[in-house]
Amino acid sequence: METPVYCPVGTVASVKALDCSELEAAGAQMILANTYHLMLRPGADRVARLGGLHHFMAWPHPTFTDSGGFQAFSLGFAKEHGVGKIGGVFTGPAAPVPRRETNELGRMATIDENGVTFRSHIDCSTHRLTPEISIGLQQKLGADIIVAFDECTSPLSDHEYTRRAMERTHRWAERCLAAHPVRVPQALLGIVQGGAYEDLRRKSTQVIASMPFDGIAIGGSLGKTKTDMHHVLEWTIPELPDAKFRHLLGIGDVDDLFECVERGVDSFDCVIPTRFARHGTAFVRPQFATKRRFRINLRNATWAEDSRPIEPDCGCPACVRYSRAYIHHLFVAEEILGFRLATIHNIWFMQRLMEEIRQSIREGTFRTLKQTWLFD
Amino acid sequence: METPVYCPVGTVASVKALDCSELEAAGAQMILANTYHLMLRPGADRVARLGGLHHFMAWPHPTFTDSGGFQAFSLGFAKEHGVGKIGGVFTGPAAPVPRRETNELGRMATIDENGVTFRSHIDCSTHRLTPEISIGLQQKLGADIIVAFDECTSPLSDHEYTRRAMERTHRWAERCLAAHPVRVPQALLGIVQGGAYEDLRRKSTQVIASMPFDGIAIGGSLGKTKTDMHHVLEWTIPELPDAKFRHLLGIGDVDDLFECVERGVDSFDCVIPTRFARHGTAFVRPQFATKRRFRINLRNATWAEDSRPIEPDCGCPACVRYSRAYIHHLFVAEEILGFRLATIHNIWFMQRLMEEIRQSIREGTFRTLKQTWLFD
Repeated sequence: METPVYCPVGTVASVKALDCSELEAAGAQMILANTYHLMLRPGADRVARLGGLHHFMAWPHPTFTDSGGFQAFSLGFAKEHGVGKIGGVFTGPAAPVPRRETNELGRMATIDENGVTFRSHIDCSTHRLTPEISIGLQQKLGADIIVAFDECTSPLSDHEYTRRAMERTHRWAERCLAAHPVRVPQALLGIVQGGAYEDLRRKSTQVIASMPFDGIAIGGSLGKTKTDMHHVLEWTIPELPDAKFRHLLGIGDVDDLFECVERGVDSFDCVIPTRFARHGTAFVRPQFATKRRFRINLRNATWAEDSRPIEPDCGCPACVRYSRAYIHHLFVAEEILGFRLATIHNIWFMQRLMEEIRQSIREGTFRTLKQTWLFD
Repeated sequence: METPVYCPVGTVASVKALDCSELEAAGAQMILANTYHLMLRPGADRVARLGGLHHFMAWPHPTFTDSGGFQAFSLGFAKEHGVGKIGGVFTGPAAPVPRRETNELGRMATIDENGVTFRSHIDCSTHRLTPEISIGLQQKLGADIIVAFDECTSPLSDHEYTRRAMERTHRWAERCLAAHPVRVPQALLGIVQGGAYEDLRRKSTQVIASMPFDGIAIGGSLGKTKTDMHHVLEWTIPELPDAKFRHLLGIGDVDDLFECVERGVDSFDCVIPTRFARHGTAFVRPQFATKRRFRINLRNATWAEDSRPIEPDCGCPACVRYSRAYIHHLFVAEEILGFRLATIHNIWFMQRLMEEIRQSIREGTFRTLKQTWLFD
């Protein structure tokens, strides 16, 4: 695998709307699947009986699973409070909702020292995740890279709550290592937590870096703004061992790739290329963008008779064959092919951008490339 | 184009869930698109400005449009009476609904000597189709084969109503020919009507065959059973000029291909491979079928841990790479890739079956092939 790398997300072992051959053609190197979703459906035991994630989804290249914790906490939290998501950069309502209240009210998810009890978003059935259960599930799923079970706090959590959650995450990290025999051929990543609080991030970095993990993931919350996120990386990455793989969970957008690679991130996973595509948003280089940087909205009537491809110099199968006008029509008519073509373009776009970034690093021209993309 | 041929249906200029490259790889020779849907969205003028249907949907192979009449009548009829569809083989409730009542009540569609006024299923806006308007729209869409505007009666229409509709269809046929200059590079097919009434079908065949159409389509209603449909073909096809292309509108299933090719049909279009696929039904050869002939339902829990492909000896991209277990999981999780893989398999299945039928005709072994498929 060449780094820095951008992993498309295949939530239920399928990168939404795409087939594995299309992902290979786009240059995707690694796919991240969600333990939370797979434990509920089809179940980790079933995936194991079908030969593990690679065989199950017919993806004979690197795979990655998360711990399940993020969704166990956040789908309940989001459902109860009507916010978009927690972790990553906050997208919810203005009024702060203290996280600990959620945990005390705890209808969708209840946390204790030992783990989390939560309800499935599919059928409201009750499930339990602990460090040992999460590692056990990830071993059954059989991805190449797995991560420790952590509590991903909200940007709305205060210092006191974030500290307690972080300390619990550290205790869980020890238990994850104990549950993962060294002979298992899976790399286990520790997760640095501590929200957007400098003292906590520095503390968590020190603790997690001292443990014998195969690599390090940087978990949310990453604050309320992109500047907060940059600070989190600046407090964290310089203290990590150089030899260890560093993954930034759940990020990112085009500008994030430049800012985070510059700060030392090796690996990203994000649903943005696929989720945006299903809403009609296609990524484009700066010179082709309209109102928002790096993107156009294919649903916009502007494109109804535009015979150009999504991005004129793109070599993806959507751009090689189809016009914006046709893809716009497919979105208006809610045809599956519209979602597919936008998704394939966005995946190609991100893979191509990442390849340009890798090349610029090899050639020592990273800053020039960043300048061209972000400040022209 | 090699006949007999099976055309996948691309209702709004997209064969649902598939990309043109996948249709080419499956061996599809011609795509049928629906004038009714395209006139409403994106509009025939827009398709014309974008270079016509071939260019619009990036399909540089033969294309076919229907007249728009079938949907103008049937979407309204179906909506008002809760039946599955009219035309083809009847799939609605047991209680007969006289067709003429619908036309008198006429909330969704009102027919008169000059054409039909109907409401869009999208936004209930009012539209009008006449023979001249239909031909004009089909000229703008620019398909290689277009069809005359007709009234497709219901299997529930009585002899008197069916006769009157047929005679009107004959008058419309004359008007379609008059509206279609010979210099336009589009083949215009006449449509034989007459329901499942022998005297009317024979009369309609005689009238339409005597007109200077480039080919003949056989329109619904084809009766209430498959036997009715076979009779309709037996009354019709022997009276058609041998040199003219014969298309059977809206058919068919696996057994239909054998029965109808045997009775002289050159060309089929049907949504079955794509629509069934979206409901989880995949076509398979007789030896792999379960309860229903020629098909399995991928939603069925039977396949949850079945590591075989949909059809073990199939060479389609879905069967080459993915297991029934994985596709079952995709259907349970309602992932787009599930619809795609089932659709691609069904399209390959029908194209492969049609190629086997063509080969058996060349080699004089058609009856043996039919025997193997239908009676083993």
